[in-house]
Amino acid sequence: MRELTVAAIQMKMADDVSVNVATAERLVRDAAKRGARLILIPELFEGLYFCTDQLAEHMNRARPLEGHPTIAHFATVARELGVVLPVSFFERANNAAFNSVAVIDADGSVLGIYRKSHIPDGPGYSEKYYFNPGDTGFRVWDTAVGRVGIGICWDQWFPECTRVLALRGAEIILYPTAIGSEPHDSTWDSSRHWQRVMQGHAGANLVPVVAANRFGVEKGQQHELTFYGTSFIAGPTGEIVTEAGRDDETVLTATFDLDAVAELRHGWGVFRDRRPELYRPLWSLDGQDD
Amino acid sequence: MRELTVAAIQMKMADDVSVNVATAERLVRDAAKRGARLILIPELFEGLYFCTDQLAEHMNRARPLEGHPTIAHFATVARELGVVLPVSFFERANNAAFNSVAVIDADGSVLGIYRKSHIPDGPGYSEKYYFNPGDTGFRVWDTAVGRVGIGICWDQWFPECTRVLALRGAEIILYPTAIGSEPHDSTWDSSRHWQRVMQGHAGANLVPVVAANRFGVEKGQQHELTFYGTSFIAGPTGEIVTEAGRDDETVLTATFDLDAVAELRHGWGVFRDRRPELYRPLWSLDGQDD
Repeated sequence: MRELTVAAIQMKMADDVSVNVATAERLVRDAAKRGARLILIPELFEGLYFCTDQLAEHMNRARPLEGHPTIAHFATVARELGVVLPVSFFERANNAAFNSVAVIDADGSVLGIYRKSHIPDGPGYSEKYYFNPGDTGFRVWDTAVGRVGIGICWDQWFPECTRVLALRGAEIILYPTAIGSEPHDSTWDSSRHWQRVMQGHAGANLVPVVAANRFGVEKGQQHELTFYGTSFIAGPTGEIVTEAGRDDETVLTATFDLDAVAELRHGWGVFRDRRPELYRPLWSLDGQDD
Repeated sequence: MRELTVAAIQMKMADDVSVNVATAERLVRDAAKRGARLILIPELFEGLYFCTDQLAEHMNRARPLEGHPTIAHFATVARELGVVLPVSFFERANNAAFNSVAVIDADGSVLGIYRKSHIPDGPGYSEKYYFNPGDTGFRVWDTAVGRVGIGICWDQWFPECTRVLALRGAEIILYPTAIGSEPHDSTWDSSRHWQRVMQGHAGANLVPVVAANRFGVEKGQQHELTFYGTSFIAGPTGEIVTEAGRDDETVLTATFDLDAVAELRHGWGVFRDRRPELYRPLWSLDGQDD
């Protein structure tokens, strides 16, 4: 029996890095107090979701991993609390820029980074303007609490991402997120669609999935977005174990026996019965197999 | 606007081919009366689920596509009613045997066959004893009612199957099924897990998904299985549109505007943002990428 308590933090962002870092730290400490040893903060929590607009000045928000003050700060927090803490950040890498996550282990060491592979684009979500498509591939992290897989927001819509992480032995998969309303259609609410797709990933791969979203209204120059919260933790059959409201600061926690999950996963047989030789069309954009 | 009404048939099987064919035909006619033009009968509906045991004599149930009496019968029914009718059957192909589906178009012509790719094995579900792993790959069918993708039962647990069908332009995806209790653990009920995984496929690929299951208790020599019904039709965000009970003969129907679904699918952007060059590990069994 190998029990892990995981936490998802749901928070509202201010237009001030130090305020957001302080809020995240307070909630991380709260999660640790409740026994969480793996804690997920939402995507790009250092500030407002600047991708609402396409403004060159926002490029100045990008910082290299080396000497990144927020990552250095949370490395200290992680070491003090003995928790694994993935930290989402806007990464400058020479002339490239990425939507990245730095993975901080429970001893405060930075294990490395993952760069978001799938970059969305649409009214209010102009990420293709800011971010290069990530070049790291899908990575798993051998942390103090187990092997952790991490995708970032839009990655969560792609079964290929979750599957690769699961094939590589991820015991739990995390998605820091920033998602809300569609400014061109005020009746559109993707929150259940968003949850169901990740519940499907959890169920298909028999691995718990954690999504941490922001909440609150954020006003850009072009669009106003209402981030819808509804952060959740799903168990290995895709069941929702715990879920936040749409408009609440929340620390969700759930406890899994990773050995029992592995037994369920291996007993169910899907990883025994895959047919890679038939999956060649996945390598194409239009379903061709050559 | 291109409206399609699809139907899923849920039925109990008898140990008599002619009885099952008559029941299926009655329900197909009922579905057609309700406006369905694409009708899904459950997996291996000609008989009891013989894979409960491992008995060489059950191999005699396999029949070649050529001259198959049940397929010929339903080709006549399909032509008369003007409906597309995939027919699941145990296929003899020289010394190989497959769990196959013959796709009958609305004019009664047989468009071809798909052979189940993923073959399960476990207490009560000894399919590896009977079936060769399918060699057709994942196929889509240009029918009178649109482009249809079909997987068979266990295939429904594999995101790779659905994704290939969707990449190849499937507008709706069908899964004839036979699933129920786990005889080694009477407390185990996979029905919601089963639904959630397919809801995830629907949501991730923005395509409706239809699952038709059998119901009722079937007693083999080794094991007794209770097939749990709960057939359903999910819409393109993974929402359950209609669902059957666990123990009822049922004809489920749902109507989709395939043009609206395509607009939703293309507008959402996931098929624009895939990164095939990062999906190489999907070709392996253990997540390696070479």
